[in-house]
Amino acid sequence: MTLEFDCPAPSGRHEHIILGHGSGGKLGADLVARMFLSVFGNAAEDAAACAGAGRLAFTTDAFVVRPIFFPGGDIGRLAIAGTVNDLAVSGALPRYVSAAFILEEGLAMADLERIVASMRATCEEAGVVLVAGDTKVVDRGKGDRVFITTSGIGFLPQGRALSISAAQPGDRVLVSGTLGDHGIAILSQREGLEFDTALTSDVQPLADLAQAILQTCSSVRCMRDPTRGGLAGVLHDLATASRVGVRLHEQAVPLAPAVRAACELLGLDPLHVASEGRLVAVAPADEAEGLLAAMRRHPRGRESAIVGEVVADHAGTVVLRSRIGGERVVRPLAGEQLPRIC
Amino acid sequence: MTLEFDCPAPSGRHEHIILGHGSGGKLGADLVARMFLSVFGNAAEDAAACAGAGRLAFTTDAFVVRPIFFPGGDIGRLAIAGTVNDLAVSGALPRYVSAAFILEEGLAMADLERIVASMRATCEEAGVVLVAGDTKVVDRGKGDRVFITTSGIGFLPQGRALSISAAQPGDRVLVSGTLGDHGIAILSQREGLEFDTALTSDVQPLADLAQAILQTCSSVRCMRDPTRGGLAGVLHDLATASRVGVRLHEQAVPLAPAVRAACELLGLDPLHVASEGRLVAVAPADEAEGLLAAMRRHPRGRESAIVGEVVADHAGTVVLRSRIGGERVVRPLAGEQLPRIC
Repeated sequence: MTLEFDCPAPSGRHEHIILGHGSGGKLGADLVARMFLSVFGNAAEDAAACAGAGRLAFTTDAFVVRPIFFPGGDIGRLAIAGTVNDLAVSGALPRYVSAAFILEEGLAMADLERIVASMRATCEEAGVVLVAGDTKVVDRGKGDRVFITTSGIGFLPQGRALSISAAQPGDRVLVSGTLGDHGIAILSQREGLEFDTALTSDVQPLADLAQAILQTCSSVRCMRDPTRGGLAGVLHDLATASRVGVRLHEQAVPLAPAVRAACELLGLDPLHVASEGRLVAVAPADEAEGLLAAMRRHPRGRESAIVGEVVADHAGTVVLRSRIGGERVVRPLAGEQLPRIC
Repeated sequence: MTLEFDCPAPSGRHEHIILGHGSGGKLGADLVARMFLSVFGNAAEDAAACAGAGRLAFTTDAFVVRPIFFPGGDIGRLAIAGTVNDLAVSGALPRYVSAAFILEEGLAMADLERIVASMRATCEEAGVVLVAGDTKVVDRGKGDRVFITTSGIGFLPQGRALSISAAQPGDRVLVSGTLGDHGIAILSQREGLEFDTALTSDVQPLADLAQAILQTCSSVRCMRDPTRGGLAGVLHDLATASRVGVRLHEQAVPLAPAVRAACELLGLDPLHVASEGRLVAVAPADEAEGLLAAMRRHPRGRESAIVGEVVADHAGTVVLRSRIGGERVVRPLAGEQLPRIC
């Protein structure tokens, strides 16, 4: 791994941080590319594989979700699951996590206790151990109740090398359940929306599901968790990195009724909405049905579906074939669709 | 490692977070003990040694220093050095770091670029590689320009087990340079104080100095970096964990003239003021002089000094012998002396 020695070129477009820079979309990617990758020169995979004693996977994420408690979860569960899932989809077995808290003066202790208890429960559910932590406090008005940064270490078996660059025409794209539940649950809590059917975040750790996938289908090309930027973001990254096209089938994409209703009401594209307990897997065509069956047998994958395929046409582009047979290009988001979703 | 299953008892004293909970003092320790250790049940060492493939050390710290640029450094250098130093004083060779940024909407890109460049330079200086990162953005007024959480992985040689519980009566306490420069540099910047002599933060990575110490004196009992809570905090932890007393000699404690002047002016005890580029080492008496000489030969330890000794009396207590021969007890801070110093 080499470090670049050039200073990053100053941005010609944005002199200040805007909310969109926190997105999983183009603005966020630009910021990372321009500001960080150009300086540190490392690959953009969410969990970096570290050379050294054995093969380690190492990842970090900051969590700033608002509100900190939401239907189906809280910032603590999100912080553990998010880091576990980054490791899990890299093919690693998640093992250790750390947590650093930035607390705003005035946060209720009871809230912090509830969050920490939720983190502990999620660690047990995920089979990881929290081994390091830190706490800082900022003055009132200089934070927002609580921010949590988790980092995680996992172990990568020798020879396992999932890569977003490995997709090949003919491969199938699978998802492990309904999409966008997390994003819409947060949004509805924030905006006071109510739906006919209950809607809860999908946030959950996926270490066991990911392991089950790898045991069933050792030739799986890559896995990703469709968080910020949603399925569209993941598939756009895949199409770009693997120099292939992706064709999605609208009627195959699993959506909870409330998510479908909310997206229609609010003009959101569910392909862009974040999930926090789903994964996307890309597998060779002849193994896809077997993998789908295995995923559906797993308690965290009961609503798994094959949603599309990798194609040789329109490299770098994701298209959606609609229910009535038309096709449209699915573009990655430029900015932030739903700020502070995770 | 076992997890406790009991919920933490609700606090009888503090229902809300106060700034003092961010301190390296008693309030901070109480918060960690009550809220986190009781829930996660892990040891309080700053860098946790993880079992697994080889021996890993893993640490995390959040950095919320204000201002983000200060004489002698910035939040980026601080974030890298802080995590490197936690690993280094544990006896590990720091190897990989991650960084998660929480950016406030409106932060100037030029400021972020300057911080990232400083992080890169400090990584090179410390011999570590930044391999993972994340960026989140919060709305204006919900953060304070930039917070950075760094995590680090180091490798611990087999058989190395430095421990704050290992001090024995007769051992000597060494420090690697003047104390409190960082804390007073931050404070003077924040309050607009000026001194006759220049004062800059001591912030620097200490991986090479720590390795030099371990090579010179393999029987060193433990090392610590006297950050929040200062030398007093480190030695109080040592006295408690090792069930020994510690006697400091006031005239032996190295202080920059400006730090001495500022502490007298402001009524601060320099033993409580944070350093970010110094370490404390505890070594057997018969190796202390040799170790001191080795530390003084190292570019990062030129002003090293033996500042006190471990004693069998007054276990759990640190006393300071003054220039005129009196002794006073040095208590750990209850709360925050200087908020947001790191």
